[in-house]
Amino acid sequence: MTHDPVEKTPVTLLGLGAMGAALARTWLSAGHPLTVWNRTPARAAALAAEGANAVGSAAEAVAANTLVVVCLLDDASVDEALGAADLAGKDLVNLITSTPAQARARAGWARARGARYLDGGIMAVPPMIGVPESGGYVLHSGSRELFDQHRATLGVPAGTTWVGEDAGFAALHDVALLSAMYGMFAGVAHAFALIRREDIDPTSFAPLLADWLAAMAPSVHRTAEQLRSGDRTSGVVSGLAMQVAGTPTFLSTAEQQGVSPELLSPYFELMRRRLAGGGGGEDLTGVIDLLLD
Amino acid sequence: MTHDPVEKTPVTLLGLGAMGAALARTWLSAGHPLTVWNRTPARAAALAAEGANAVGSAAEAVAANTLVVVCLLDDASVDEALGAADLAGKDLVNLITSTPAQARARAGWARARGARYLDGGIMAVPPMIGVPESGGYVLHSGSRELFDQHRATLGVPAGTTWVGEDAGFAALHDVALLSAMYGMFAGVAHAFALIRREDIDPTSFAPLLADWLAAMAPSVHRTAEQLRSGDRTSGVVSGLAMQVAGTPTFLSTAEQQGVSPELLSPYFELMRRRLAGGGGGEDLTGVIDLLLD
Ligand SMILES: NC(=O)c1ccc[n+]([C@@H]2O[C@H](COP(=O)([O-])OP(=O)(O)OC[C@H]3O[C@@H](n4cnc5c(N)ncnc54)[C@H](OP(=O)(O)O)[C@@H]3O)[C@@H](O)[C@H]2O)c1
Ligand SMILES: NC(=O)c1ccc[n+]([C@@H]2O[C@H](COP(=O)([O-])OP(=O)(O)OC[C@H]3O[C@@H](n4cnc5c(N)ncnc54)[C@H](OP(=O)(O)O)[C@@H]3O)[C@@H](O)[C@H]2O)c1
Repeated sequence: MTHDPVEKTPVTLLGLGAMGAALARTWLSAGHPLTVWNRTPARAAALAAEGANAVGSAAEAVAANTLVVVCLLDDASVDEALGAADLAGKDLVNLITSTPAQARARAGWARARGARYLDGGIMAVPPMIGVPESGGYVLHSGSRELFDQHRATLGVPAGTTWVGEDAGFAALHDVALLSAMYGMFAGVAHAFALIRREDIDPTSFAPLLADWLAAMAPSVHRTAEQLRSGDRTSGVVSGLAMQVAGTPTFLSTAEQQGVSPELLSPYFELMRRRLAGGGGGEDLTGVIDLLLD
Repeated sequence: MTHDPVEKTPVTLLGLGAMGAALARTWLSAGHPLTVWNRTPARAAALAAEGANAVGSAAEAVAANTLVVVCLLDDASVDEALGAADLAGKDLVNLITSTPAQARARAGWARARGARYLDGGIMAVPPMIGVPESGGYVLHSGSRELFDQHRATLGVPAGTTWVGEDAGFAALHDVALLSAMYGMFAGVAHAFALIRREDIDPTSFAPLLADWLAAMAPSVHRTAEQLRSGDRTSGVVSGLAMQVAGTPTFLSTAEQQGVSPELLSPYFELMRRRLAGGGGGEDLTGVIDLLLD
């Protein structure tokens, strides 16, 4: 099958869960011929009604196009879905959230079957897909050649960011960013718990919280600079000693409000350990060293 | 001493540490007559060279002006510094980070001495003071009358936000916002630790991290809406079951990178407990309920 250069690249998509369905709709809207497969056929039928070519097996879907995007649940589901498919000459783009080790192993697996391999980590929830101003994007690593060739098509659902030839790097960045997010969510949970029993409307508190977190997020640049230079004491704004001295205020406020300190204590404990270990002239960057074995 | 209405309100400031000195400079730049006192006189001398009136005792500084701003280290230092001062007729604005209980007690203490009392929590680090675009501001609660009367003067170092007549509310908001920030910093520490042993420049990773946290921070609005309505299942974007299923990916990536999971595990543990307790149709808001005793 040849395509006129002005025609949009045809895409095969495996997996039509919450995320896969969101991706699928953006390719359909942008005019890309789309072949889909989903283990539970009803989900594929819904997309067929919107213009997708729904097929009955993953192998058939793979056979339909060169560019094959995978958005199944987890790494194990790839073996199940693609065990019988012929991947020779295919460009496999795996958007499943996985560990770096799984991504690297999957890259080798794909190469052994004659496919080029690009890994991806989706930094978005489904409502952010197809909404450029949401800030969502997809991290990619692996075959740069594949990435460059299909960049326009891969960029339809969300922006794309390249992080290296190592197929595991997209996953590592993905996991690191999501881990940071869970830390933020833990802090957010603690904050909402603190105001819970007071006459404070959480929806009035939320804008203060969102703005404050956004205002403090850029402090990661100073942290990165200190990590890169190795100098933990350059550009210190809020000293570790002052911050450790403030921790009783946080812990006793939690106690007064009937809130468990379990989400904050581990970080405060590391701050105390770092200060005791001689981090008096630092800010919080030294805590990172304590996490590494 | 009377002042021409076009003259700027004179301010007394007690405490010239990192934060006090930053505040002082903004009032001097804006043309407010400024009287300062600091326990260690050298710091006051530095401000005197920039135009402040440096006096030898806190009582003397209090006597100089009606509006008295306090930016000492902690609540205990107020007793030490202001034990001998005559507060009758004064407008006391206390910007010390404290617990809500300390702020309420301090308000009663001030009223008993004949002063109006306004509490404040500074949502900024010193370099953000006098830099409106930094997003820093001061939370106030307590005497609304005092706040309204001195709003322009109080707004010189940073924007001001009113959160209620309860003198403890500024402190409660302050502690809640800072607690959320420490959660975010814990997540950031884990994220940087994950990439530490790879050939990834932390200063290239930092923009991804800052942007991602800023993109996810607005999710607090959905959380607040669910808390207000009591409906934990409305507007769910990423289901708890799917998120709990993803936690092994985060934990084994940490293990592979030699990073202790201690900062993430407590939150994951609460997610698991909530799911086991029947939170399958929810997102993460239900975790907040588990923090309250
Ligand atoms: N949703 C998000 O917020 C989000 C954000 C970023 C990244 N992601 C990632 O995107 C991927 C898909 O997530 P999702 O939200 O779409 O999940 P989902 O709604 O739970 O859908 C899971 C998909 O995987 C399929 N599947 C599961 N096990 C399978 C197997 N053994 N063989 C074949 N197909 C199988 C399901 O098919 P059935 O229909 O037959 O069950 C369904 O299509 C995951 O790796 C997730 O981590 C999701
Ligand atoms: N720095 C920040 O990032 C930041 C951010 C938000 C809020 N805050 C709050 O602002 C307040 C001041 O913080 P800071 O950063 O300026 O602290 P700092 O640099 O450590 O300065 C502390 C100040 O308190 C004085 N002080 C301490 N104990 C005293 C006592 N017993 N009697 C009299 N004076 C005493 C010190 O006087 P000496 O000079 O004699 O030691 C100094 O003026 C604190 O409540 C802090 O939580 C700070």
